Amino acid sequence: MAQGNPLFDDRDVRFVLYDVLGAEALCELPYFAEHSPQTFDLYLKAARDLARNEVFPTYKPMDEAAAHYQDGRVHTHPVMRELWPKLVELGVLNAARPAEVGGQQVPLVIHSAACAYLMAANLSAFGYVMLTSGSAHLIEAFGSSELKDKYMQRMYAGEWTGTMALTEPQAGSSLADVQTRATVVPDSADGHYLMSGSKVFISGGDQTITENIVHLALARIDGAPAGIKGVSLFAVPKQRLAADGALVDNDVSAAGTFHKLGWRGIPSIALSFGERGACHGYLVGEPHRGIPYMFQMMNEARINIGIHAVATASVAYREALEYARTRPQGRSAGTGATAPQVPIIAHADVRRMLLRQKAIVEGGLSLVLQTAQYQDLSHHAATPAARERALALLDLLTPIAKTFPAEKGFESNTLAVQIHGGYGYTSEYLPEAWLRDQKLNSIHEGTTGIQSNDLLGRKVIKGGSGKGQDGITLLREEITTALAAANVAGVDQLECDALHRALDIVVDLSGHLREAGARDFEAALRHAVDYMELLSIVVIGWMWLRQATAAKRALAARPGDEAFLRGKLAATQYWFRTELPRVAQLAALCKSNESSYADMRDEQW
Amino acid sequence: MAQGNPLFDDRDVRFVLYDVLGAEALCELPYFAEHSPQTFDLYLKAARDLARNEVFPTYKPMDEAAAHYQDGRVHTHPVMRELWPKLVELGVLNAARPAEVGGQQVPLVIHSAACAYLMAANLSAFGYVMLTSGSAHLIEAFGSSELKDKYMQRMYAGEWTGTMALTEPQAGSSLADVQTRATVVPDSADGHYLMSGSKVFISGGDQTITENIVHLALARIDGAPAGIKGVSLFAVPKQRLAADGALVDNDVSAAGTFHKLGWRGIPSIALSFGERGACHGYLVGEPHRGIPYMFQMMNEARINIGIHAVATASVAYREALEYARTRPQGRSAGTGATAPQVPIIAHADVRRMLLRQKAIVEGGLSLVLQTAQYQDLSHHAATPAARERALALLDLLTPIAKTFPAEKGFESNTLAVQIHGGYGYTSEYLPEAWLRDQKLNSIHEGTTGIQSNDLLGRKVIKGGSGKGQDGITLLREEITTALAAANVAGVDQLECDALHRALDIVVDLSGHLREAGARDFEAALRHAVDYMELLSIVVIGWMWLRQATAAKRALAARPGDEAFLRGKLAATQYWFRTELPRVAQLAALCKSNESSYADMRDEQW
Repeated sequence: MAQGNPLFDDRDVRFVLYDVLGAEALCELPYFAEHSPQTFDLYLKAARDLARNEVFPTYKPMDEAAAHYQDGRVHTHPVMRELWPKLVELGVLNAARPAEVGGQQVPLVIHSAACAYLMAANLSAFGYVMLTSGSAHLIEAFGSSELKDKYMQRMYAGEWTGTMALTEPQAGSSLADVQTRATVVPDSADGHYLMSGSKVFISGGDQTITENIVHLALARIDGAPAGIKGVSLFAVPKQRLAADGALVDNDVSAAGTFHKLGWRGIPSIALSFGERGACHGYLVGEPHRGIPYMFQMMNEARINIGIHAVATASVAYREALEYARTRPQGRSAGTGATAPQVPIIAHADVRRMLLRQKAIVEGGLSLVLQTAQYQDLSHHAATPAARERALALLDLLTPIAKTFPAEKGFESNTLAVQIHGGYGYTSEYLPEAWLRDQKLNSIHEGTTGIQSNDLLGRKVIKGGSGKGQDGITLLREEITTALAAANVAGVDQLECDALHRALDIVVDLSGHLREAGARDFEAALRHAVDYMELLSIVVIGWMWLRQATAAKRALAARPGDEAFLRGKLAATQYWFRTELPRVAQLAALCKSNESSYADMRDEQW
Repeated sequence: MAQGNPLFDDRDVRFVLYDVLGAEALCELPYFAEHSPQTFDLYLKAARDLARNEVFPTYKPMDEAAAHYQDGRVHTHPVMRELWPKLVELGVLNAARPAEVGGQQVPLVIHSAACAYLMAANLSAFGYVMLTSGSAHLIEAFGSSELKDKYMQRMYAGEWTGTMALTEPQAGSSLADVQTRATVVPDSADGHYLMSGSKVFISGGDQTITENIVHLALARIDGAPAGIKGVSLFAVPKQRLAADGALVDNDVSAAGTFHKLGWRGIPSIALSFGERGACHGYLVGEPHRGIPYMFQMMNEARINIGIHAVATASVAYREALEYARTRPQGRSAGTGATAPQVPIIAHADVRRMLLRQKAIVEGGLSLVLQTAQYQDLSHHAATPAARERALALLDLLTPIAKTFPAEKGFESNTLAVQIHGGYGYTSEYLPEAWLRDQKLNSIHEGTTGIQSNDLLGRKVIKGGSGKGQDGITLLREEITTALAAANVAGVDQLECDALHRALDIVVDLSGHLREAGARDFEAALRHAVDYMELLSIVVIGWMWLRQATAAKRALAARPGDEAFLRGKLAATQYWFRTELPRVAQLAALCKSNESSYADMRDEQW
């Protein structure tokens, strides 16, 4: 069964990209001028084929035989050595980057869809790509031309991999507490610093895939100010390039691996820098700017987590759907004991679980792709105003695009296990592995609590990244426009009205919380997670409204797609009738500022 | 940290047993006349001490080294051979059974609390106890005196273990499809049948703990009617007792183990009966009555799953609480970068997650213990009317007592992982293991979908086990009584009013669905899971109302407990403000009979 898993429904990916998002319009912008729907499709097809034929078969072996630590090295699964060159050849490491660094200038919305297939096939294997690409991007954005020549080029070329080395034992979510030291070496010809310190949870921090690894590490230059304003960004290669071009051991050692619940194909490692006092680090950008640099990349990383989460939910949904269609169990009411058993998809409750998965997976996919499209537009839209508008919407949607798929994707993956029944609880079937994988997505790159504080505190109460564009106001405009289009297309009026009401509630609540936050910021954040939940429901409602609109339009034009399009209308109905009514209740909770947990004293537990 | 985990808060267990449930009143009933609060406390203390000192330390080793299949046998963890006699010595196998079968006649409400500690310590280890006790109980209830002498006695004495052998590859939830065959042996002196067939997912189906195992197996006597009315119950020992008292191999073979996500200390096994045509089975009770017999025991098994789920949620909650108190990370708003980090419990969102866990764990514990008390009363209350009333309430509450802790316990265990952050995702810490364990509880002994259909279909629409006692009517009486008591005790009037309103909604909705079900039973079950959810919220609200009432009373009498009691009021407030408002929305959804998933056609996915 697993062999036939499509990872995503190709029709759905096309539907979202073209019918809903109109991604082909990007080709009219100068940056994407070399592209056309045909080049998009070629790239998507190449990624999809590789994902299905080469990547997916590696998933279970890599989950079963996790990387292990031996003799000071981490040994990753041997299959990765075969897979890596194929991923590199596909071009995913820098497909979306500019031509001047060897990229293809593929829009992120298309690139993200391609990556989604690969993540669904084996999220750990793709993790090496994402980390290498993201860390090279940091050098591209902030590094010297020497760093670009020496390190970034080889990373984008897939010769070496990269990591993000942020976390330390005492500094997980609190990056202000980074203690890794960087000491100036006064007479150094290449301007290197001497690094010393320990990092933990460094994904891909050691491997037996390529000959070298470049860690993008946060550290504190001796004498730097305390807190986040004293943290700098360094490139710390496992082996450094000497002046003569030789690779020299750089005193970076793997101290052991963590044993993780999932993502078992990519090791999470404790690293030591400079145990022998010989670890060179190269400053990226200016001193003490490490945190802002990281955060500039963080948006991208967070959206990628959202795509990971959608992908992990999608592959499990497709598996559950196939299982439900083929597993006979039980009978419909009113049939005799000698009637054959029916496939479990005949039971309404199984269809309930499947439609909930569909609503989460396909709603989530459209959200992460919409967010990726705003990334494209924030950089490359035709006018400054359009770029600013896209940036403000991107800013608002990023924490939601990370959190909704992570949290609801976990619920969706749980349903995939549940549909498989007792078999779902065993590793003879795949859903339990995807359930394990999915749990990380609410933790890494900022927990759900942190994302929620970012959304309500920074984006709503404090007005986001500024430039006078308020995200909630822009979101209201977008949804209002979508409602008008839905109306024209003939989407159910009751559904339109329901979203309109929910939108009014969001606008009212956001204004209320902004005022409350001006008085007492910390108290106003008390229900940040509830606010995240309710805004997610509305945003996914917006996504489903647009899918329903596109479906209504297409029903006339493409009668052959009718069944697929009616499924879209059913999922819209499900979301609007089941989830949207929760908005009013959650808003009342946020507004009441219910204080039970805030008031709990330590001795009361 | 794990070493100090209390598993449950002893104060809370006492509070629920005595302040909320008044369990000491059971001692006035003849069946429990030998007991007193002192004998209860001795039993609870013995269980608690064993759980903390001997059982809990075996949890991680047994999770890490799951039972394995080798040379036709399943080898369970060697530590179980040491632990088993201690569990037997505690008396848990038959503590609640009558004196005539060697039991202590401990009320189930007390026994369940004792078991909860042991389950929290190591649910797999305790699984052997539960299965042995449950299968012996089947023989006690329905078996011949010969079966009792030969098998039940040795099972209650812990010499042999027992299993429930229901499931077959084609018959998971659908027990009507059991195909294991039992063939009459006309001239047999002991009336045995020859068994042949395969079972799957038999927990504890083979082990290296005791010399013998007795499987209580469903099978079909040759020529039996199709469907559930042709399924019989058999005792099928691994080794049978010959006439001379010798143990003879009974042609039961372990065909392999399933690799499970959790519960890794107790193997789940595929069994074959009669591969050599020499497997003897002994009919328990009358032919073709296997399903009703099983269901009579199933209520007990389902409540036990609920207790397992509460226990697994409790141990993780206590672990998360301790972690949150001791893990420094981040700072409160407004403190400088050089201020020391605060323990994460200082962050409101961490307290939100902890209070949600507390509400689920302690609300769930009071529900499962209340349900166990109804079991006691259904058998041993002073009058037939009181017994019938307890039985009707037990009947209604059983699917809730199984499902609420399983589903919300999984959410609670997820929060325990989340609070541990990145560490929570690793097996260096325990929460990920409890998360894995918890997932089974929504699947085994009837999935959440099946429990929900049982609740809405059998218990509400069809009026339950009959005798003219309608469960919803009785529940309304109970909650109304509790509201009056809460009023007297001075519980927040707004909270009382909110529960009153939610209760009215339940009563109205139940009547509506009963009428709808009379017209179209299958359509009325469409929102059975939503009905389960809303009734659970109300029932747990009832539990918290009674805890708040008891807390208010105790505040005056036991000022030393003030902090603990205020914590109870805070958890009540949390549940009433956060969960109760969902009832109206869920009821509207049920009433609308929203049909999106019911209408989905196969080609529309």
